[in-house]
Amino acid sequence: MADETVSLDVARGFVARALEANRTAPETARLVADALVLAEADGLKGHGLSRLESYAAQALSGKVDGHAEPSVTKTAAASLMVDAAHGFAYPAIGLAIEALKALSGETGIAAAGIRRSHHCGAAGHHVERLARGGLVALMFANTPQAIAPWGGKAGVFGTNPIAFAAPLEGRDPVVVDMSVSKVARGNILKARQEGTPIPEGWAFGPDGEPTTDPESALEGTMAAMGDAKGAALALMVEVLAAGLVGASFAYEASNFFSGDGPPPDTGQLILAFAPAAFAGPAFAERMAALAGAIEAQDGARLPGLRRYENRARAEREGVTIPAALIARFGPV
Amino acid sequence: MADETVSLDVARGFVARALEANRTAPETARLVADALVLAEADGLKGHGLSRLESYAAQALSGKVDGHAEPSVTKTAAASLMVDAAHGFAYPAIGLAIEALKALSGETGIAAAGIRRSHHCGAAGHHVERLARGGLVALMFANTPQAIAPWGGKAGVFGTNPIAFAAPLEGRDPVVVDMSVSKVARGNILKARQEGTPIPEGWAFGPDGEPTTDPESALEGTMAAMGDAKGAALALMVEVLAAGLVGASFAYEASNFFSGDGPPPDTGQLILAFAPAAFAGPAFAERMAALAGAIEAQDGARLPGLRRYENRARAEREGVTIPAALIARFGPV
Repeated sequence: MADETVSLDVARGFVARALEANRTAPETARLVADALVLAEADGLKGHGLSRLESYAAQALSGKVDGHAEPSVTKTAAASLMVDAAHGFAYPAIGLAIEALKALSGETGIAAAGIRRSHHCGAAGHHVERLARGGLVALMFANTPQAIAPWGGKAGVFGTNPIAFAAPLEGRDPVVVDMSVSKVARGNILKARQEGTPIPEGWAFGPDGEPTTDPESALEGTMAAMGDAKGAALALMVEVLAAGLVGASFAYEASNFFSGDGPPPDTGQLILAFAPAAFAGPAFAERMAALAGAIEAQDGARLPGLRRYENRARAEREGVTIPAALIARFGPV
Repeated sequence: MADETVSLDVARGFVARALEANRTAPETARLVADALVLAEADGLKGHGLSRLESYAAQALSGKVDGHAEPSVTKTAAASLMVDAAHGFAYPAIGLAIEALKALSGETGIAAAGIRRSHHCGAAGHHVERLARGGLVALMFANTPQAIAPWGGKAGVFGTNPIAFAAPLEGRDPVVVDMSVSKVARGNILKARQEGTPIPEGWAFGPDGEPTTDPESALEGTMAAMGDAKGAALALMVEVLAAGLVGASFAYEASNFFSGDGPPPDTGQLILAFAPAAFAGPAFAERMAALAGAIEAQDGARLPGLRRYENRARAEREGVTIPAALIARFGPV
């Protein structure tokens, strides 16, 4: 059996069928498939098809409830709480996005907390959807433990992504999407698989000392971007995405990978700002000016452009489904 | 004439009189004095008494309008715009904080944009005030140009502070307060004054290459914390604090130091979250658990503790007013 390169539509169908065969409702399977295939298309492999086997295992065991129905409650004039009900995060996030689009026009700013949630995938995709609706958006998510508090040795915070997007008139939104760890954990998993050391500065062993051994790194903690400042950002995201919304903290959450254990119960917080309530009609001109000041410099680009380029290529050329996935869930 | 160590009250009186003698209204002078002396007490020298001479020069020349009266407008159910009217930032920020405290209880989340503003000082102090009112708070501010877009050579973004605070029951709030530059610009000014080189990695010369020469660094740009990720955060803050609220971008803003030129017209954005609208009554317990998980580790501390320790010492022992300030504005 070989890898197969297929259109995005065919890839979405393949992923959805794989999930439906593993105790996931059709509509949920479709939303998860949309998210994984978009991440794969954008070149964000860590949030793409590489997740399918572990998602299926978690749905099969019931660690993720593939039949959960998320619900949204308006808790005050501008605030929403979404209960993901221990299902996949994507349907809950989609519900939050649609509710925020409707609400923020009236309120200027609106926020949605999501609890009893799971892996949010590429956080940039969620804020991008809000920006395509004309809104400025911020998202914070917590993840299972990875980063130690500054001065400590044990993981208390997750790699805790921060994502941001803003509309640019007549072109794709500008999107910032980063974890607060120095590098993605996937880089360390890859080094372990390949039997190669990791560069110093990526991670610490369980003793809190820098390590180049991927095995020791995986038992230890990930370095935060920008050292103490990044560790402080990890704390900030932990409070916003978990403490504020009543989700489990990173150090309490089960992993996003294996089928065993209780649901991770992680959290997300999404904010949407209606520019009309702040800068007003000047906003579009202001954003164009900022983009122009960046792009006037040789070598400088807006963040997020590479993923749009990858996406356009994948729309033309398709994405590759690895042979191992076809063997496990096939045929395509 | 010698340095004099005086109580915080005496220091505030000294600063307020100095500003009143330089075309600043008494009530505004008092608010600016409160901010500078609190920063000095907290050990945040770059936002403390070191600012007094340049603040006075800017008020005297009219670059900052010492008689400006900030005003607040409710633009939608949960959004406010504050016009700082080219005055000092502190009265405008104070107005925003009081309005956010009143509004966020009804709306769950509320946001205040501030435009036609100036140097916001220690951003952590502003979010701390909201947290002492039981709110979770976030603040973004832009500053004059300092950081290049990733891949570029010329400053487009400011050092753009991000501040965050959350209440902890029965103790001081946890406060995160950081610029997105790797180090504060004050470190480079100090090296130039002392004629010493700066460590590699702090800054780039005008050619975009790393430099250890403070003079070249001041003509060039500051390194962002965490490299590309920090540059992306700088862009995010620029959009939130300036683009969204209709303020000048870093590359358009005049400096915060000299009396010449037009007003800087920078911006700030402050968000307040009422925990009752999200996690509800569980919030206090959740925050105590997180603080406990951090403090259970040897060597790990909550961010912001050092400034509270400095503040307590300054309340007992006073702060030192340098001889040069007494010579300029004296007597104490």
